[in-house]
This record gives sequence, structure tokens and C-alpha cells, in this order.
Amino acid sequence: MPKKIAVLAGDGIGPEIVAEAIKVLSFLNTDMNLGLVFENALIGGAAYDAFGTPLPQTTLNLCKNADAVLLGAVGGPKWEPLAHAIRPERGLLGIRSELNLFSNLRPAILYPQLVDASTLKPEVVMGLDIMIVRELTGGIYFGQPRGVHVAENGEKVGINTKIYSESEVRRIAHSAFKIAQKRHKKLCSVDKANVLEVTELWRNVMTEVGKDYLDVQLSHMYVDNAAMQLVRAPKQFDVIVTSNMFGDILSDIAAMLTGSIGMLPSASLDANAKGMYEPIHGSAPDIAGQGIANPLATILSVAMMLRYTFNQPEAAERIEHAVNTALDSKVRTADIYSEGMIKVSTSGMGDAVLNAL
Amino acid sequence: MPKKIAVLAGDGIGPEIVAEAIKVLSFLNTDMNLGLVFENALIGGAAYDAFGTPLPQTTLNLCKNADAVLLGAVGGPKWEPLAHAIRPERGLLGIRSELNLFSNLRPAILYPQLVDASTLKPEVVMGLDIMIVRELTGGIYFGQPRGVHVAENGEKVGINTKIYSESEVRRIAHSAFKIAQKRHKKLCSVDKANVLEVTELWRNVMTEVGKDYLDVQLSHMYVDNAAMQLVRAPKQFDVIVTSNMFGDILSDIAAMLTGSIGMLPSASLDANAKGMYEPIHGSAPDIAGQGIANPLATILSVAMMLRYTFNQPEAAERIEHAVNTALDSKVRTADIYSEGMIKVSTSGMGDAVLNAL
Ligand SMILES: CC(C)[C@H](C(=O)O)[C@@H](O)C(=O)O
Ligand SMILES: CC(C)[C@H](C(=O)O)[C@@H](O)C(=O)O
Repeated sequence: MPKKIAVLAGDGIGPEIVAEAIKVLSFLNTDMNLGLVFENALIGGAAYDAFGTPLPQTTLNLCKNADAVLLGAVGGPKWEPLAHAIRPERGLLGIRSELNLFSNLRPAILYPQLVDASTLKPEVVMGLDIMIVRELTGGIYFGQPRGVHVAENGEKVGINTKIYSESEVRRIAHSAFKIAQKRHKKLCSVDKANVLEVTELWRNVMTEVGKDYLDVQLSHMYVDNAAMQLVRAPKQFDVIVTSNMFGDILSDIAAMLTGSIGMLPSASLDANAKGMYEPIHGSAPDIAGQGIANPLATILSVAMMLRYTFNQPEAAERIEHAVNTALDSKVRTADIYSEGMIKVSTSGMGDAVLNAL
Repeated sequence: MPKKIAVLAGDGIGPEIVAEAIKVLSFLNTDMNLGLVFENALIGGAAYDAFGTPLPQTTLNLCKNADAVLLGAVGGPKWEPLAHAIRPERGLLGIRSELNLFSNLRPAILYPQLVDASTLKPEVVMGLDIMIVRELTGGIYFGQPRGVHVAENGEKVGINTKIYSESEVRRIAHSAFKIAQKRHKKLCSVDKANVLEVTELWRNVMTEVGKDYLDVQLSHMYVDNAAMQLVRAPKQFDVIVTSNMFGDILSDIAAMLTGSIGMLPSASLDANAKGMYEPIHGSAPDIAGQGIANPLATILSVAMMLRYTFNQPEAAERIEHAVNTALDSKVRTADIYSEGMIKVSTSGMGDAVLNAL
């Protein structure tokens, strides 16, 4: 049975970087006889422009029937004036929610070849390898009630609701503990339990689930301290698990520590390892269409797809190894360029990976 | 008329660091004839232990009748098992709310003497001087409904509500714009307007208020990007204004960039510049009672008090200058110690500042 991949290039640099990832994946598909088939669809601003909605039903159906989704990025200033419900971001949030992709894995790995690109001192980040597990279908991103209404005194009031049920916390806890078991067996759960009751529930459930994973050392940290510790001594972390909103913030900090936000992939998984794969970075509208974006995060997202959804660790490693080889050969896109390196375009970087496969 | 200061030492290292700040302030009080009177009261865990509540009515009354409040820090693991409503943190949050201290100023300044203490490369942080303006009496910290309830299916559900009215955003906007006018006239408002309707209202009100301050350059940034930009290129910021929760996180990142979280003061002001002054750092229960905590953040908080509430810029500058002189003389508490410096205790540091006055 063919394995179906829905390809959603999206907006901004999305199409450029996805093209490179597909180039790499198609090669492996043939070379290793993986049996993958690709089908494209529109999402985000591109879908809005064509159909008036950021998540057309046909796109959603395609994703539901696929085994995995490869996403570029969505959004851009062009669509910022739109009402919330039809913004490009809603397309992304819609897929996460409709496909139940509650477990978002965001590795922050420092490539030793790029240590100079970090703004942190080398000794602070050298060897950095953190996995952030972000709850992706709950919390304040999806809680009701939400919206802006007019109060009795005539002024506008905006509301969003951060809400988690025990079962929502329990399933992300199990995901995170399982991942910690395969790594260095340290899990730090990040909350704001001293102020927010919802995160106190979060903390209690984490502690309870922890009893099933006695080989994993569980700790708890307040989100303000965690943000600070990521800057102070990031290597203290192995796996971090946190809510949707906190995970959004912390994963961007962690990514930036590595100096290579253009390099970092992500996986968003449901309970059966069906998943959506996308770079951590956004649609970078300012450089779209110039052929200078870094395709490595998307290429590495494909490696995560092969590992998590298609259970092809060997194919995943071939890609990761090829990325390393490309970096060793000193080719760099503009975002990770430093003196003495060879500057290449988006497709130049894709070719470098392809040649190293 | 005497000017009254309510002194709330609080928990952990609170009493040790407040003692040093009072030492410095009492000297200036006599020397410059400032007419300040001090009165102590309990708050936080200390108040809970004595009275069963983190914010006794007598403490609250004292604060309401005072012109300014000097706070050490609250909380510690000892009180973590307590129910939310009686936690030490509730004492702090109670004062912020009851005194209407909606405008929280958190400067992040790099002391050139301490550049080595930062984990960031010197060129990234040298000269760093950011002011974070955090909304302090609204948002998810105080929104209703909140709490944990049992749903129909028997499972627990936790809820907190992020809520802002136009007028709440408007008043913090005016605070922030006014501060920006006195600095480099750049204001960055941080929100998550692409996902949260409440922060879309925030963004719209900021833009509207901005029309009254055409000399200030207003920009908007999503919170995940802002966290990242603080690590990537913090010197791009002058003043940041944001919500209670985002401000909690971003101000800790900004503070840590300077490598001297033990050095950074804060002011929390109402509409009439009545205020509470406290170090940004917490109660550090792990080092409490050892006489090794850094009192400079509290001493510098007193300088902010003299400037903002008592309109004594000269006295404020004397303190800030004395702190600089102390640092120049190479005395360092453990948190900012590096090779070649002279390690001093909490009171040793207080004395160094006093001698430099
Ligand atoms: C684009 C936006 C809706 C999204 C989020 O906030 O989740 C992005 O920042 C991310 O982290 O994937
Ligand atoms: C102690 C805690 C309630 C407080 C907060 O979250 O506001 C602290 O972290 C701070 O930043 O002042």
C-alpha cells in the first residue's frame, strides 16, 4: 500500500524550502524503494487567496487521508488585516486540531559546525541537545470562550481561555516521558503553578503520570525561571514538556540558542504517530522568492517524518548524515553564513544534501 | 509631612537583602534630610506562618497608607503544598492588585563591569539597556473564571482566563509611551495577535494610543519572536510593553542576558506614581540565611523609589553611582563573582555601597 504524504507548501518561503525537501525525499523514495506518494494542496494565505479560506475542505480531507503532512510555513503581513477566523494561521491551527496532533516535538540541537552562529558563548551551548515537547491542541490556543465583546459600559473586552483537562495533560505527559526514556531520562515540566490553577492541575497530573516512569527523573520549573535557565545554562535540560503557549515561547528561545533557527525541524504527532512535519521557523515574507532561504529545517523535518511516521530510521539517518556532510563541506545559506564559508542559494543547499546522500 | 515607606522583607533571602537596602536608604535619609519613615510588616510565607494568610489586613492597610512599599521577595518550597488562595505569592499579587500597581517597570541593564557574567557574547550585550513595561494587575493573572472543577465525565478541568479591557490596555500604553519619550523613543509592543483575540485588542489599542505620541516609533512583535529576538539581537530594543504573563517571561530573559539577575530592580506604579519596589529575582530559598545573597537589586530598587515616588533624582543617582563605584572596586557577591574579583558577603556588599555614597 502506498504511503501518502500531503504536501502543503504554504506562504512566503514555504514553496522554496518544501521544493528542496521533496527533491531530497524523492531521491530516497526511489533509491530505497520507500513507496511514498506525494499530493500537493493549498493552505494558509495561498489557500485564502484562491478559495477565501485558509483551510479548504479539500486540503483538510487530503491531510486526513494521508499518512503524513509536510508543511512549509503560513502567514505574512499581506493577510494581517484579515479577521481572525480567516487568517493563514487558522489553517495551521485547524490541521493541528482536526488531526489531533497533540504532541509537538521540537528538538534544539547545536550543530558544532555552526557554533559561531550562536549569540551565546561556545562553552554555554556546545553540545546542546534539548527536546521540547509542546502540547499542541489545547490550552489558550483553543480554549473557549474567546473573542472580543463590548461590555456594558461600552468598552471592548478581549478574552481567551487557558483550559486543560486531566486527560489532555495525561496524554502529553506519556508522550514526553516516553521520549525522555529514549534519551537521558530527565524530564522538566514547565508551568506557572504558583499563579495559574490550570497549570497546577498540569503539575499534579505530571507528577502522577511520573509514577509510571520511575526511571525518568521528573522536575518542575516555573515558566519565567525556565526561560531564564535556557539562557543561563541550557545544557541542564534534556526533555522539556509544557503547554501550547509556553511551548511556543520556550521552543523559539531554545532554537535561537543554537544560532540556527533555519536548521530546526519539528514533528506534530497524534496518538498513532501520524504526523505533520514542518520547520520551526516561519514564512519569512521579507526574503520570500529570493532563493536564499535555508531549506535544512524542512529537509530535517522530512527525516523526522521518516523516523516517526514511516518507521524508517535508516532513511532518516541518511538525511541527517547528509546534512552534516553538507555543513562539513562549508556550504552555508545566508542565515548561517560566516567568514570563510561558501555562500549558497536555497537550491544550492538542497543540491549539497542530495549529493551527500 | 513624613513620607512613609512600608517595608515588607518577606521570605527566603528577603530579610537579608532588605536590611542592606534600608541601611543605605537610612544613611541618605539623614544625610539629605529626606524625611522618610519606615514601618515593617509581614507578607508571604512569613505572614502565613504568623497569621494564616499571606496578606494580613494590617499589612495591606499599612501599604495603602504608605507612599511607597519596599518588598524583598516571597515564596519557597515550604509553602508549595498550600492551596492557591493562601500561597505566599498571593500576598504579592494581592498588593499589586489592591494598590492598583498596573505599571511594572523592569530595566535590564548590562553593567560593563559584569560583562563576563553574561552567557552571551560581549558584542551582543555590551551597552544593553532595555526597559520592559509589564502590565501588572490584569491579564491571565487575575482573570475570572479561574480554578479547577470536575467536569460531567468526572475528570478535572483547570481554567484561567486572559482578559483585558480597552481601558486597561490604554493606561499601560500611555505609561509605556511616556517612558519611551524619555528614552530612545522606540516602543515595541509584544503580543500574540495572530492567535489570541485578547492580544489583537491589545495591538489595536496600542496603535490607537500611539497616535498621541507621534515622536515615538511603535512596532509590534509576536511573543515567540520577541523571546527569540532578545537572544538574537537584544540591542534592537529600547522599551518593550507587554501583558502580565508575557512580561513575566520576557523580563526574566532580558534580566538574564545581563548576567546579573541579582542586580536588577523593579518598580510597580499606580496612576499617581505611588509604588512598590522590589528586586526582579525571587526569594532564593536555597541560599537563604547564608549571608551570600546579592543586595544590589534591592538597593537599586530603592534608587527607583527615590526617583519615581519621591521625585529625588539626585538621591537616586547617588545610589546608582555608589553601586557603580562598588563594582569598580571589584567587590562581588557569589552570583556575580569571577576570577580576580573580591568575594564579599551580603552585608559586605551593602557596606561597599554605603562607603561609596
Ligand atoms: C504561526 C503560529 C500560529 C504558530 C504558533 O503559535 O503555534 C507558530 O508560531 C509556531 O510556533 O508553530
Ligand atoms: C512570584 C510570582 C507571583 C511573580 C510573578 O509571576 O509575577 C514573580 O515571578 C515576578 O515576576 O514578580
